[in-house]
Amino acid sequence: MPRRYVITFGCPDRIGIVATIASFLAEVGGTIVEAAYHTDQDTGWFFTRQEVAADSLPFDADELRSRFAAAVAGLDGTWQVLDTGVRRRVVIMVSKEGHCLYDILGRVASGELEVDVAAVIANHPDLATITEAHGIPFHHIPFPAEGKEAAFAEVAKLVAETDPHAIVLARFMQILPAHLCSEWAGRALNIHHSFLPSFVGAKPYHQAHRRGVKLIGATCHYVTAELDAGPIIDQDVIRVGHGDSIPDMVRKGRDIEKVVLARGLRWHLENRILVHGNKTVVF
Amino acid sequence: MPRRYVITFGCPDRIGIVATIASFLAEVGGTIVEAAYHTDQDTGWFFTRQEVAADSLPFDADELRSRFAAAVAGLDGTWQVLDTGVRRRVVIMVSKEGHCLYDILGRVASGELEVDVAAVIANHPDLATITEAHGIPFHHIPFPAEGKEAAFAEVAKLVAETDPHAIVLARFMQILPAHLCSEWAGRALNIHHSFLPSFVGAKPYHQAHRRGVKLIGATCHYVTAELDAGPIIDQDVIRVGHGDSIPDMVRKGRDIEKVVLARGLRWHLENRILVHGNKTVVF
Amino acid sequence: MPRRYVITFGCPDRIGIVATIASFLAEVGGTIVEAAYHTDQDTGWFFTRQEVAADSLPFDADELRSRFAAAVAGLDGTWQVLDTGVRRRVVIMVSKEGHCLYDILGRVASGELEVDVAAVIANHPDLATITEAHGIPFHHIPFPAEGKEAAFAEVAKLVAETDPHAIVLARFMQILPAHLCSEWAGRALNIHHSFLPSFVGAKPYHQAHRRGVKLIGATCHYVTAELDAGPIIDQDVIRVGHGDSIPDMVRKGRDIEKVVLARGLRWHLENRILVHGNKTVVF
Amino acid sequence: MPRRYVITFGCPDRIGIVATIASFLAEVGGTIVEAAYHTDQDTGWFFTRQEVAADSLPFDADELRSRFAAAVAGLDGTWQVLDTGVRRRVVIMVSKEGHCLYDILGRVASGELEVDVAAVIANHPDLATITEAHGIPFHHIPFPAEGKEAAFAEVAKLVAETDPHAIVLARFMQILPAHLCSEWAGRALNIHHSFLPSFVGAKPYHQAHRRGVKLIGATCHYVTAELDAGPIIDQDVIRVGHGDSIPDMVRKGRDIEKVVLARGLRWHLENRILVHGNKTVVF
Repeated sequence: MPRRYVITFGCPDRIGIVATIASFLAEVGGTIVEAAYHTDQDTGWFFTRQEVAADSLPFDADELRSRFAAAVAGLDGTWQVLDTGVRRRVVIMVSKEGHCLYDILGRVASGELEVDVAAVIANHPDLATITEAHGIPFHHIPFPAEGKEAAFAEVAKLVAETDPHAIVLARFMQILPAHLCSEWAGRALNIHHSFLPSFVGAKPYHQAHRRGVKLIGATCHYVTAELDAGPIIDQDVIRVGHGDSIPDMVRKGRDIEKVVLARGLRWHLENRILVHGNKTVVF
Repeated sequence: MPRRYVITFGCPDRIGIVATIASFLAEVGGTIVEAAYHTDQDTGWFFTRQEVAADSLPFDADELRSRFAAAVAGLDGTWQVLDTGVRRRVVIMVSKEGHCLYDILGRVASGELEVDVAAVIANHPDLATITEAHGIPFHHIPFPAEGKEAAFAEVAKLVAETDPHAIVLARFMQILPAHLCSEWAGRALNIHHSFLPSFVGAKPYHQAHRRGVKLIGATCHYVTAELDAGPIIDQDVIRVGHGDSIPDMVRKGRDIEKVVLARGLRWHLENRILVHGNKTVVF
Repeated sequence: MPRRYVITFGCPDRIGIVATIASFLAEVGGTIVEAAYHTDQDTGWFFTRQEVAADSLPFDADELRSRFAAAVAGLDGTWQVLDTGVRRRVVIMVSKEGHCLYDILGRVASGELEVDVAAVIANHPDLATITEAHGIPFHHIPFPAEGKEAAFAEVAKLVAETDPHAIVLARFMQILPAHLCSEWAGRALNIHHSFLPSFVGAKPYHQAHRRGVKLIGATCHYVTAELDAGPIIDQDVIRVGHGDSIPDMVRKGRDIEKVVLARGLRWHLENRILVHGNKTVVF
Repeated sequence: MPRRYVITFGCPDRIGIVATIASFLAEVGGTIVEAAYHTDQDTGWFFTRQEVAADSLPFDADELRSRFAAAVAGLDGTWQVLDTGVRRRVVIMVSKEGHCLYDILGRVASGELEVDVAAVIANHPDLATITEAHGIPFHHIPFPAEGKEAAFAEVAKLVAETDPHAIVLARFMQILPAHLCSEWAGRALNIHHSFLPSFVGAKPYHQAHRRGVKLIGATCHYVTAELDAGPIIDQDVIRVGHGDSIPDMVRKGRDIEKVVLARGLRWHLENRILVHGNKTVVF
């Protein structure tokens, strides 16, 4: 894909924001490849995301950052400029279930997801072989009932070493301690195997089966200290019926879990997701 | 549609049930037009529904009932024989929002739903004109804050007079008293404008908007004394995004509410739904 | 809904278009309520749609038109300014099947679709009663095999009298002559009961049943002289199986036909659809 | 999963078929775990599929076959008894695109699909590493423009050696010669990246983009001599819009291709698919 600079910007809404940004880009000759805008009516917050063709600008990303900062100085906004020419890193955390991991590895191997998987961290050894066949380091860190704190410390150290743009909980079955939720805020994505806010917590397919629902779902969300309550990135559902046992639901659910997680991860890596309070704007 | 006898049957599972029923039907020369079976693995309960061509039998529905009773006498089951040649009656309860009512009336007018709408009961007068244009009696019963008991008594009387096979709460915004839930058990269908069990109770689209979900849903269920907790008949969802305001959600949601309610009502009238505990088998 | 001016604009892509439009709107104090942009990579054509709060401007729609014309004079574009404060008119053409008509009438009656239905034109009398109950003129124009030309002339006259913003073929089963396709270009919407380009022409559900597809669809498109080949506005599908007869498909299909047509009509009336060659941009 | 005998049976419809089969199973003490029936109204052909718990029978699969043959001797039917205790074999054919292959390998590795992948055959070497990491033989057979016949001969020999229950064309980009279609009839499954019958043949996403459709699809079907015209097993679609380029469609389409192919393969291996003319009954 051709190199692009992705500008994401948010500020209190007022007249002239788009004019300011668009005029700035026009003056420096930037070709806007994709643009999206949104104003949250409840909070009066304005959001935009703009993709600019890198080769249309006569300077580099750092120069764009400093010029853009000057251009929007009066708008009280927060912003980021992502350079798609700089390869991004992701760490994946798993347990025993491999469907989400295999799915992401396949997407990376085929070039669909342009990202480096810096490490796979697992509390079980089961998924080592395929991970390593993809040339990716696999770290098995056991989580004994009485030693979770130490295990998480080791995880935190490993993650810190690679400083990833995304930490993906790909059916990692341990609950993150609050300090890691906070340290990884806005970078840690989880896939929960229910249509949140239904069926928070453990064994959601068992809960769904007991309630007799006719659709099961999966939710990709940012991790926050409150379990399964973080900003929702994407969701999807699949139909089930009276003939579907819990194992059938588990099997059918996997197909939406992996697709929803992959979409969420892709959008995150492309800076398509702007978090606002406990909600997301997905451009 | 050609006349059919619809047999629904449930009993504790054991070997030979299908053989018993199928042999009985073969002996009397019954042509099975459609058949479905299910055994609930958790409770060991067996369910079946069979549609028999009425003109393949040399006797009428009552004779079928008495012969069938004898045939399955040893199976400790419960059963019903529906004669599709006997026109069924339905009562619809509404408030101000007409989308579900209009949808049902359109299906009846076109012959899609072969049922008599015996009455529409409403706590507001808004939907009288179109109802009456369809030639259906419209009963406006106000529900003042201090007089709901009397209003429900009047509703109960009206319903009792027509003895309907289905009472459809088509966005009727009042909570049924427990004694009516009990009196109408298995006949009262509600459409709830959320993907249950998410967002029980009032203003589910507001709740959905606040949580930032990416799909909204609708659920058709049998009414029970516990609010929005009855056996689920059908559910569906539609995608929403950050750009959808609450009124947008209300509007988009209507399109699934009416479809889900119509499907549920159709299945109910065709005896396709077998309730078992708090769950449904939908054949 | 608060009054808005909806600007739609298309021109050959170049640097500075957004800046030009946004700066113009900022200078006159316009509050942009919603904005979308797209550039077609194949043809290099730029599209935008902007909703401006009417009460944020110190002048009326005509003044906006003349100022906007001046502002974009150098861009070689085509544009339109829709004033949502001016009520729009629609003519609906039907045959015997009422599901799409009833659906639209219900949406208008509830205020969901803010439009005047100026007339319903039908080649059969079946749908007169309900149409007239909504207070809408119903014109029955028979289409005898040997007199279609005269019938279409009468239709054309009726349509011309109301000069509608949309002519909706809501399961009207006659093929429009080329001269009407041309006269009504960009205003005539059809709902075709298949997932185009599959099953063009007559009896698409029969074709679908014969091919053994597992999903059936509906397509809303602008009418052009080539049958079922105009620019697609929206499509949707619903699952079918081996147990579904042709009448089952017809019934299930209706539920997507009416939803897809209603979405298309709504987008058309809100100027959300920009036609470009034989494709649509839907903002 | 507990061992089961899966009986599939088809014959001209008549009264007493279900009674015959159910009585036979009741007499030998067979516990029916799942049962489905269908009669094709156009051809008057009856179909059934029954899963019997193996440990409920006092004899083995061969004895069941011989007794069942006697029981249904008078019905002019065709039937099969599948023993799920006998592990099945599959051969996968691929080109360069790995998403379907990786998906199937992941399902096999996790135990979701209980099958042996006997071989992967490819006309390009790209997918060797991951295949071999799963412990599966990878055969690279080049298909030069002038030597396809020889290449197919080699493929045919490899396939014959493993005598697989399914040959899966997982985005294998070569057209099978008629004699292989015939030799593999009922065992060769293809995934076509369109919603058939739309966009038969090469580059369906390009065709879809050109037509401006709003949904793209994938179709799993049995391979027959006429290209992309065999009996459809399953289909699904995903929404696209004006912003989706052809590469976007290719990427989004992959997510449905792999799910639809996996469903089709699973159903095929479980003998859930009964082919009748050019259509399928999927139980």
